[in-house]
Amino acid sequence: MYEKVALIGIGLIGSSLARAIRQKGLAREISIATRSADTLAAARELDLGDIYTTSGAEAVENADLVIVSVPVGASGAVAKEIAGSLKPGATLTDVGSTKASVIAQMEPYVPEGVHFIPGHPLAGTEHSGPAAGFAELFENKWCIFTPLPGTDEGAIDKLKAFWEACGSHVELMDKEHHDKVLAIVSHLPHIIAYNIVGTADDMETVTESEIIKYSASGFRDFTRLAASDPTMWRDVCLHNRDAILEMLSRFSEDLASLQRAIRWGDGDKLFDLFTHTRHVRRSIIEAGQDTAAPDFGRVPKKD
Amino acid sequence: MYEKVALIGIGLIGSSLARAIRQKGLAREISIATRSADTLAAARELDLGDIYTTSGAEAVENADLVIVSVPVGASGAVAKEIAGSLKPGATLTDVGSTKASVIAQMEPYVPEGVHFIPGHPLAGTEHSGPAAGFAELFENKWCIFTPLPGTDEGAIDKLKAFWEACGSHVELMDKEHHDKVLAIVSHLPHIIAYNIVGTADDMETVTESEIIKYSASGFRDFTRLAASDPTMWRDVCLHNRDAILEMLSRFSEDLASLQRAIRWGDGDKLFDLFTHTRHVRRSIIEAGQDTAAPDFGRVPKKD
Ligand SMILES: NC(=O)c1ccc[n+]([C@@H]2O[C@H](COP(=O)([O-])OP(=O)(O)OC[C@H]3O[C@@H](n4cnc5c(N)ncnc54)[C@H](OP(=O)(O)O)[C@@H]3O)[C@@H](O)[C@H]2O)c1
Ligand SMILES: NC(=O)c1ccc[n+]([C@@H]2O[C@H](COP(=O)([O-])OP(=O)(O)OC[C@H]3O[C@@H](n4cnc5c(N)ncnc54)[C@H](OP(=O)(O)O)[C@@H]3O)[C@@H](O)[C@H]2O)c1
Repeated sequence: MYEKVALIGIGLIGSSLARAIRQKGLAREISIATRSADTLAAARELDLGDIYTTSGAEAVENADLVIVSVPVGASGAVAKEIAGSLKPGATLTDVGSTKASVIAQMEPYVPEGVHFIPGHPLAGTEHSGPAAGFAELFENKWCIFTPLPGTDEGAIDKLKAFWEACGSHVELMDKEHHDKVLAIVSHLPHIIAYNIVGTADDMETVTESEIIKYSASGFRDFTRLAASDPTMWRDVCLHNRDAILEMLSRFSEDLASLQRAIRWGDGDKLFDLFTHTRHVRRSIIEAGQDTAAPDFGRVPKKD
Repeated sequence: MYEKVALIGIGLIGSSLARAIRQKGLAREISIATRSADTLAAARELDLGDIYTTSGAEAVENADLVIVSVPVGASGAVAKEIAGSLKPGATLTDVGSTKASVIAQMEPYVPEGVHFIPGHPLAGTEHSGPAAGFAELFENKWCIFTPLPGTDEGAIDKLKAFWEACGSHVELMDKEHHDKVLAIVSHLPHIIAYNIVGTADDMETVTESEIIKYSASGFRDFTRLAASDPTMWRDVCLHNRDAILEMLSRFSEDLASLQRAIRWGDGDKLFDLFTHTRHVRRSIIEAGQDTAAPDFGRVPKKD
């Protein structure tokens, strides 16, 4: 599909891409660049590509597809480093979880004749680093592109075919809308999860071992999100600040009203809210986005 | 183990108990009482017991174990109804999610010579009604007893053996501590989940179909809890008010501070909090309370 793909950043997302590209034969050659010698050695050990370097500029030489998979706060520095070495006609994309900020950081460096198509695969796990990746990560997941007006249609179609070959469904939207949608479906849930786990961890009247022991009653469902990579999530919070603050203030307003209903024993109001939210779950199951099996269909521990 | 068990309330919990009792041969006879003719007919259809009645008083006659499995707000009325028909020497227990309130409601009606042992199996799903139950629900789960001082040790031991035969691990604690522990591990998570789903559902800038479509990015993990039974959760909120309000106010305080860190771009503070919460997840996995498999080990949809 492509001749040479350069992967800048080889953590969970970059390494999953490397594996998918290999498994599905989507490029003749894979070059891998990452900042640290340790991560590079791990990638080599896992045999994820053909060329290994700590220099992004070197990795992108002659590549017709360059995929940047680093924390969103590092996008600008990476773009600056590789810009001068990009091949004319190449496609440059990324996988960052926020889009307006990534575009603001990278776009100024993109040379004439290079197709810059910002992207975001909605696929991930709470694990990070090159060993955490797997080829199937993108299967049946969405990948959102937020191309700038006037971007070459052929380049978009080719990148779309690439993600589809990885198993994803591609959707196009503008960057501001992407950032609002993600703020509510992903960023707010992660922040709330981090917060509740933090609150629980600071209790004096209930011990941590009790919280662990009885976590299956609801709490543990939050801990998966709260175990996500701190660097990634720090950067998401810093780089999608306005949309996140908007969602947070609505959430807090709603919570204050719920709290008031509890304080004043307003059972009807509680019942209404608790009824109202059920259909959302039903729609998610119908859309095939989750399983209705008890316990999320968690595979029981064999022992 | 027991001669005759009476189940008052035959929803998710009651019907799971009926199935476990049958499967493991824990009683010679099961009598079932529920308020409505419809639910009673469903229980009969499912062949959950031997005697079916809409009268709690009738069901408990000659029973040596009575298990009340109704929303916590109905505990007092049920106790009042059955009190006069309880057999001397019988054990009376319940499965309610809050304990101080259930005890305050039921205890005044318990006749001399009946062993009242309040209980709470930490096992459930987001589904309700008699068809939702299954015999394995209690396997490898905790069941907490909050007996009053002076309760007969022999009766406690026998009830403990009963729950162990259902697959549970039994733990004893006082009612106030139970209510605080559950407020943080279960009640707060459910309330937060209901709230976030409510907030998302009220967005104008992001459509509901977008929220459903992209829910796998974090949001859907909350929707399972937010699909739980509205009556049950209204009652939990009304009957564990003080502990829940305490946890809510701590949660909101912590969230305000996190919000401030986002607003002011305090990356170090965000990074610290997001790092701090990871060990909780690790401990839960080590304690065998969850799986580290990507996606909670959700069994992928076959199509
Ligand atoms: N994880 C998810 O669930 C998920 C889902 C969708 C999108 N994303 C996005 O994907 C991107 C990568 O996430 P990931 O989960 O793959 O992360 P990861 O596993 O932590 O890997 C991060 C990669 O970026 C490099 N890196 C880190 N900081 C850097 C810096 N300051 N400058 C240059 N390179 C740096 C790392 O290099 P060294 O190890 O050599 O330092 C590593 O190669 C992020 O933008 C994230 O928003 C993540
Ligand atoms: N679901 C969980 O995850 C879970 C976990 C642990 C403990 N619990 C506790 O278990 C108890 C039962 O929950 P469940 O999930 O089994 O509920 P469920 O499936 O909704 O069943 C409720 C049962 O209680 C009866 N009932 C409802 N309102 C009543 C009232 N006002 N007066 C008398 N009977 C009434 C229902 O009778 P009709 O259908 O005939 O009206 C039905 O038999 C609750 O106290 C709950 O706190 C639940």
